[in-house]
Amino acid sequence: MQQQPLHGVTVLDFGQVYNGPYCGFLLAQAGARVIKVESLIGETLRARGTTSAASYPFAMLNSNKESITLNIKSEQAQALLKKMVKSVDVVFENFAPGTMDKYGIGADSLRADNPQLVYASSTGYGVSSGPYKDYLGMDITLQAMTGVMSITGEDDGPPLKTAAAFADFIAGTHLYAAIVSALFSRTQTGEGATVDISMQDCVFPTLSTALGSYYVAGGQPPRAGNRHPGRALAPYNVYEAADGHVAIICIREGHWRKFCKAMGAPELGEDPRFVDFPARSANMDELDAVVNAWTSQRTREEVFAILQEHGVISAPVKRLNDVINDPHLLARGSLEKRPHEAFGEIAQLHTPIRYRDIDPPELTDPPALGEHTEAVLAELAGIDASEFAELKDSEAV
Amino acid sequence: MQQQPLHGVTVLDFGQVYNGPYCGFLLAQAGARVIKVESLIGETLRARGTTSAASYPFAMLNSNKESITLNIKSEQAQALLKKMVKSVDVVFENFAPGTMDKYGIGADSLRADNPQLVYASSTGYGVSSGPYKDYLGMDITLQAMTGVMSITGEDDGPPLKTAAAFADFIAGTHLYAAIVSALFSRTQTGEGATVDISMQDCVFPTLSTALGSYYVAGGQPPRAGNRHPGRALAPYNVYEAADGHVAIICIREGHWRKFCKAMGAPELGEDPRFVDFPARSANMDELDAVVNAWTSQRTREEVFAILQEHGVISAPVKRLNDVINDPHLLARGSLEKRPHEAFGEIAQLHTPIRYRDIDPPELTDPPALGEHTEAVLAELAGIDASEFAELKDSEAV
Repeated sequence: MQQQPLHGVTVLDFGQVYNGPYCGFLLAQAGARVIKVESLIGETLRARGTTSAASYPFAMLNSNKESITLNIKSEQAQALLKKMVKSVDVVFENFAPGTMDKYGIGADSLRADNPQLVYASSTGYGVSSGPYKDYLGMDITLQAMTGVMSITGEDDGPPLKTAAAFADFIAGTHLYAAIVSALFSRTQTGEGATVDISMQDCVFPTLSTALGSYYVAGGQPPRAGNRHPGRALAPYNVYEAADGHVAIICIREGHWRKFCKAMGAPELGEDPRFVDFPARSANMDELDAVVNAWTSQRTREEVFAILQEHGVISAPVKRLNDVINDPHLLARGSLEKRPHEAFGEIAQLHTPIRYRDIDPPELTDPPALGEHTEAVLAELAGIDASEFAELKDSEAV
Repeated sequence: MQQQPLHGVTVLDFGQVYNGPYCGFLLAQAGARVIKVESLIGETLRARGTTSAASYPFAMLNSNKESITLNIKSEQAQALLKKMVKSVDVVFENFAPGTMDKYGIGADSLRADNPQLVYASSTGYGVSSGPYKDYLGMDITLQAMTGVMSITGEDDGPPLKTAAAFADFIAGTHLYAAIVSALFSRTQTGEGATVDISMQDCVFPTLSTALGSYYVAGGQPPRAGNRHPGRALAPYNVYEAADGHVAIICIREGHWRKFCKAMGAPELGEDPRFVDFPARSANMDELDAVVNAWTSQRTREEVFAILQEHGVISAPVKRLNDVINDPHLLARGSLEKRPHEAFGEIAQLHTPIRYRDIDPPELTDPPALGEHTEAVLAELAGIDASEFAELKDSEAV
């Protein structure tokens, strides 16, 4: 691979917050030209300002993009878009369902202007069919709707979200995947496509372990805290270390025997209380106490190093400050420390879509709002300086 | 789009458990021919048997695939693989780092046999470089290592995992995305590629909200249960309903005013305690009590219907039984009820990569172990019946 994989592809990115912008980020880091299209006040994250908590994800997700403003409620702007789509490959958005159609610039309209266009949307529930197709959704409500909250937390506590916004990001990844699949298809057939990604669909497969336990038990398994949902595997928990916690999981009988050796107590591997998965499940509290007694005398990193060396799967429970300084993420080039006007320095991510053949492009700062409007409109819609001034005056751009 | 997007693509899928097999599932549902390659006892999930909790995800992730067995420790099998890769487009795996190289059938070796090949791996930490490149990882240890556990749970409780196996699935989605990007690139350049996906990289972006709060606060935000990690947004929580819980989130000032109207108390929108985000954050306990008083008198579905009607983002906290019977997932064709030999009936997923132009292929049962070995070896490696019998005898296949 001598050039970035999506070299030569041009994209209009109407993304906002995480889901759409992450798709645009992946496209840009894969070498596509990504033109971020924003309202006159900027998309939701930008509008919260550079000193807000939104500023970090905004910087992370919008590097390597151009920015143009387009007031999609304006008929002039709608006409401009219909002109521009003739020279782009992809348009994507994650607006509330029906937004683009309401302004006459939805999939059917734009694909009529350019039959090779890939038009893609990502919404809470998908827009093609079904009773929720017009419903609004965000990460936390999708964690509720998909059952994720019902399986997260302690047995005797309330259902819990995870603060990892994974519903948004797993949908943004599927959105990217669907767009690139359609681009591949277009090289074979010459045709465009309309992509319809539902966050609900994308989260469903992550229930796999819990649903396996559900089908075996014939009902909802306990939330189980950090233990295995079906309580079928042990050790499988978060244990105390001298300076925090460590996660340890033994998914094969051999892992437990290796773990016993790592603890300097190979005889535990033959102890009838712990001899196989059923025995260890039945004596889970006792087993976890044995493990805790060993882990709590060591630091997280000591436990991790000893267990990796013995082929036992474990990890320190890292805090955010550890993660943004993670030696592996930095050495691998996945994270890069870059200046930020309010926070001094931030850890920015390169694309997780990595090839051994080629490095991802250098990260840039996110574009200023509308920084490229005039140049892009000149190039893609043939707008000259006086027409541009008029469009500005009428608040179309 | 008149045909499935990856029509004509042939894949050898060495996936196991969730991460790799989900990638293979997405490829198969996108129309690729996916040949699942398993050890002589079957991959980890299959080996646990059809009555185990692993049987549900195994069925979900392995429909629409062929199955062949290949003992990759056998030199005869290695030679067969090196012959077969000449007629396939993609080989992917999610073994422990270095497994394929150890047997002389890693990326460099197979790409030497077929320079157009896309070779892809997904591992805990990526195999190209960095101090963790040889480390083992699984979903729960990645949730530890990436900080996800540190931000999940109650303020005064331990760090918690989510039981949604999202680290595995978000990595499997990136694996698919990287493979298809490389296939697209190959149509432009004629070259193959080596994909290197790290689960750690793929989980990192999901920290976005928490890292935004971290940078503003200059340190780790509280775990915050179901509240906003930075406590900057409210209402933002899981509230009690008459028959369970509901998640409600107001991310714009207008949402709160709409919510007040939905509760029949528009005056609350002007109440100085709740008039804007800073006021509502300062009076969060009082606000949550007001919301709870309203939600607890209604069922989850009543709250959901009223709030959707008023443009407020919310969702019932569904349990697994609700989710597999979700009317939208069934109406949209995302879930399909299919027979299962041990569980009677299971809800199986169609691909979340959906197009309005074409429906995904019909789901099939997962293939029997090695069901297609003889036919595939005949076709792709020119093995005749007597050679096949010999290979069986020597336990190469």
